[in-house]
Amino acid sequence: MDRFDIAIIGTGPAGVSAAITATIRNKKVLLLGSRELTEKLQKAHRIQNYPGFPAVSGAELAAAFQGHLAQMGIAITEKRINAVYAMGDYFALQSGEDMLEASAVILATGVVAGKPLPGEEELLGRGVSYCATCDAPLYRGKRAAVIGYSPREEAEAAFLSEVCAEVLYFPVYKEETALPETVRVIREKVTCIEKTEDGVAVKTAENGYTVDGAFVLREAVAPGQLVPGLETDGSHVAVNRQMEASIPGVFACGDITGTPYQYVKAAGEGNVAALSAVKYLDTL
Amino acid sequence: MDRFDIAIIGTGPAGVSAAITATIRNKKVLLLGSRELTEKLQKAHRIQNYPGFPAVSGAELAAAFQGHLAQMGIAITEKRINAVYAMGDYFALQSGEDMLEASAVILATGVVAGKPLPGEEELLGRGVSYCATCDAPLYRGKRAAVIGYSPREEAEAAFLSEVCAEVLYFPVYKEETALPETVRVIREKVTCIEKTEDGVAVKTAENGYTVDGAFVLREAVAPGQLVPGLETDGSHVAVNRQMEASIPGVFACGDITGTPYQYVKAAGEGNVAALSAVKYLDTL
Repeated sequence: MDRFDIAIIGTGPAGVSAAITATIRNKKVLLLGSRELTEKLQKAHRIQNYPGFPAVSGAELAAAFQGHLAQMGIAITEKRINAVYAMGDYFALQSGEDMLEASAVILATGVVAGKPLPGEEELLGRGVSYCATCDAPLYRGKRAAVIGYSPREEAEAAFLSEVCAEVLYFPVYKEETALPETVRVIREKVTCIEKTEDGVAVKTAENGYTVDGAFVLREAVAPGQLVPGLETDGSHVAVNRQMEASIPGVFACGDITGTPYQYVKAAGEGNVAALSAVKYLDTL
Repeated sequence: MDRFDIAIIGTGPAGVSAAITATIRNKKVLLLGSRELTEKLQKAHRIQNYPGFPAVSGAELAAAFQGHLAQMGIAITEKRINAVYAMGDYFALQSGEDMLEASAVILATGVVAGKPLPGEEELLGRGVSYCATCDAPLYRGKRAAVIGYSPREEAEAAFLSEVCAEVLYFPVYKEETALPETVRVIREKVTCIEKTEDGVAVKTAENGYTVDGAFVLREAVAPGQLVPGLETDGSHVAVNRQMEASIPGVFACGDITGTPYQYVKAAGEGNVAALSAVKYLDTL
């Protein structure tokens, strides 16, 4: 298997900045995320304090970042990483059924908006899953619910509908859905997930839906879940001024490291994380 | 006297970023530095890793920063600050014979390149000065030397020549000088400054020049000299992740806080320093 020097998870300003600096330093970089970068950036109405770009829209700044990546020949790999395992002198990154390898990892996945649903964390692995690609086989011919926090999760629901007997989709956003007819869209606010005798129940203000499995799909995963054993500080990764996390070879940057949640702060930290990762690689 | 909310010393990417964010937060900002921003930025041949600006020259990035400041109506005050004194609930900033006041201070003066000259620090205040405007009156009718680290220091030498009987100018750069005829330009490398019976001697590899006072003028001053009592870490200001220095109300960002010396790292830290200063002002 190809082993990358540095895997960068996340394509917001932090991940983009880290990828640019690591590439300049001649490292073999795997940049994982969306080619559209992030929802947060794309949807920002007006950004006034990214120095050099007075009063731009998020889409304009995103386009400038995409142009910068393109000019340097940096590709974005559209894979979702479910877990990162420290293997000694390298890291294994699980993406559904695939495994990827890198000598160092930079976490730039942003911050999880809002709290987990009541019951979500307790039932993780016992009826609740964060990864449709990984766990779809468990629900073959069965009934599944998907709680999707952005339109990007619809692809996961569509995939599940090819495997499961029935898929219920709870969009946590206002946009129209574009899903196969076999997926049943339910526009009700999910209040909690509860254990039942055979599966779980997704409760809304109005109803309860008993399913065999519930998939909770958000753009960002809590860092402690992404990298088992990583020291966290609430919903953030604990880092020092060099952007080193508690596991040697793991670095973090951007919103995931804490407030303020600002674009240029994230870009600056991405630069520092990349240079610290380069230094770490020199010690291997 | 007008008291500013936040005085920002330095107009590199860190200071510019801090000024933009503090202004957006409706603070009364005093941005101190050069309208040309910094020599380091202006002279950078090619910058590849400031996200959004692929492969720009330093002059192009500086022009983008200047445009951003102009668009927001942020002016640069061209005063050199010689010292910052903590006065309790505000700070007094000494600029030659003027005093300025601000409730909080952000240090963004960059890092002092190279080591002090042998003898320089020992003789500070006893024949060596960092401030022509402050100390010129001491050398009225006398003989002074100026060791200038950039062409910008020539204005100080010209001013001294109006007051002193004789001014020797040692340029520590290759550019042609543009000085009054009364200033004697000596293109020799200064090796040290020594105490003599009546003044100091500026020694070069070739000669020794006895003068009454020697002015050592650099773009950046060592942070411990700029803010008496500030905790430093070598030539850097000690800060935490919120960019707070050891004195409440003092923040720092950019190269002055340590490596890596990178433009986007500096801009990111400027943003954080400004938001921390805003938070500090709320506690007053």
